[in-house]
Amino acid sequence: MPQRRRLDRAPALVPETVKIKGPLGIIAGRGSLPCVLAEAASARGLPFHIVGIRGEAEDEIERFPHTWVKWGEVGKTFHTLDQNGCGDIVIIGGVNRPDFSNFRLDTGALKTLPFILSLSKGGDDHILSRVVRFFEQKGYRVHGARDVAPELLAKEGVLGSNTPSAEDEDDIELALRVIDALGRLDVGQAAVVIKGYVIAVEAAEGTDAMLTRCAELRETGRTGRRGRAGVLVKAPKSGQEERVDLPTIGPDTVAKSAAAGLAGIAVAAGGVLIVERDATIAAADREGLFLLGVTLAEHEGA
Amino acid sequence: MPQRRRLDRAPALVPETVKIKGPLGIIAGRGSLPCVLAEAASARGLPFHIVGIRGEAEDEIERFPHTWVKWGEVGKTFHTLDQNGCGDIVIIGGVNRPDFSNFRLDTGALKTLPFILSLSKGGDDHILSRVVRFFEQKGYRVHGARDVAPELLAKEGVLGSNTPSAEDEDDIELALRVIDALGRLDVGQAAVVIKGYVIAVEAAEGTDAMLTRCAELRETGRTGRRGRAGVLVKAPKSGQEERVDLPTIGPDTVAKSAAAGLAGIAVAAGGVLIVERDATIAAADREGLFLLGVTLAEHEGA
Repeated sequence: MPQRRRLDRAPALVPETVKIKGPLGIIAGRGSLPCVLAEAASARGLPFHIVGIRGEAEDEIERFPHTWVKWGEVGKTFHTLDQNGCGDIVIIGGVNRPDFSNFRLDTGALKTLPFILSLSKGGDDHILSRVVRFFEQKGYRVHGARDVAPELLAKEGVLGSNTPSAEDEDDIELALRVIDALGRLDVGQAAVVIKGYVIAVEAAEGTDAMLTRCAELRETGRTGRRGRAGVLVKAPKSGQEERVDLPTIGPDTVAKSAAAGLAGIAVAAGGVLIVERDATIAAADREGLFLLGVTLAEHEGA
Repeated sequence: MPQRRRLDRAPALVPETVKIKGPLGIIAGRGSLPCVLAEAASARGLPFHIVGIRGEAEDEIERFPHTWVKWGEVGKTFHTLDQNGCGDIVIIGGVNRPDFSNFRLDTGALKTLPFILSLSKGGDDHILSRVVRFFEQKGYRVHGARDVAPELLAKEGVLGSNTPSAEDEDDIELALRVIDALGRLDVGQAAVVIKGYVIAVEAAEGTDAMLTRCAELRETGRTGRRGRAGVLVKAPKSGQEERVDLPTIGPDTVAKSAAAGLAGIAVAAGGVLIVERDATIAAADREGLFLLGVTLAEHEGA
């Protein structure tokens, strides 16, 4: 059943095979993804060095070769990358908007101040595209997490032992339409739909906060209280800078979806990262949720 | 500056002048709107009777002629309306999805069970349109709040003493595009945009909860912390059943927008109700927020 044709949208999510030669620079923001990626690089024997953004990256990165930089220490970032021979880089994990009260302007930053100031405006994708272009202009090759660790990408089809009902399929379809409509405006990568009713749309708050809200709506009776119903759907925005900001799920996403009473989770196959894949599928099976990789059809015009 | 052309969208929000003859039945859900409407009806000498949905309507309605019904007491609702001569009705204030564990099925309800069960599926507008059609089929004339009290509708232009900046205007434009894109999928009537970044999109949680979330995002540095920036925009969904569910703002909306650090609020002129208009404008002036009624251009095709 995941074979049916989904929304028209770009792009076909097939990872290109990229040959990453040298040591990999991992520029690390929030969350567990930087360490997940570091482990994947370790596993395949790829040398790497993590540049952790202070106040964003988790202390966990200290398990690996790393250097801390502050927001705005652009010169130190380049210096660290160059000293470690990192011509290839991955930028991974969310970052807050630049907070100019907590900003360390080093020599590199002063030279690039117009660029940095430009980061205080616009949607995520707009900003991330600029960051990628900025590093590329300096001669770095910017890769996505999926180039380094394609095994993290969601595969097509039913990923656990539960399958979606016809009603769930309808909810998935509607959620994909919501994500598609908003993605064109550089908003959101996730939505929750229960029985044809769009309960929540993700913007800046992130998926966890959105799911907590859904659980509260259920508690207060704003959505039905009985039985599992509805879906969380995550998919990349149409035209998204996928090297930087692929949507992600993990065991915690399953736990929060279960708490919100949802019947399952659908993600764009090849377009969403699953952190701790086995644990995520096990959690879905344990909670009775389906986990589905759906294929988005290719874009065929506006 | 509010004169510039906004998004193409339907419909032109010009209230028709409706002659409401008899006593008005006010079917009351959540919030202060039912009482605001009752006061407006009183002020113009229009007799009315409130049918309060138990668990939804505020106790405040007891200040006026009223009858309480439980969710599902369809027969009692008709009986109350008929006994009070209410051929004209207004349905006002949000209601939760029918909760069948807290349901009182009376004789009227049993006859209309398929209709009631149909209310557990679909988006708000989908459901509200069915409710309106249901009452119309029974011979009632269903009006909107704006037919009874057009003075509650937001007017065009700057409503207080503060005016939006060019940057605010851009944020308003983007928020309107978000609401427009989602409205076509029967989602949301509100969004918050700060400097080109869509911070929050309203779905089932309501505007107050969305604004509280924006204040939290500001606290945690996910959005800029300094100075007022950004807008709350509310507008009816494209093609919305406007007789039932017009978006609403009031003094509390202003307080919550101020707490979220926003620069102002824009609403669709003629398409959004302002509860306690004078207090709302005074609150905006006091907090330094602009309050703007924007005109949505007429729809001219897909």
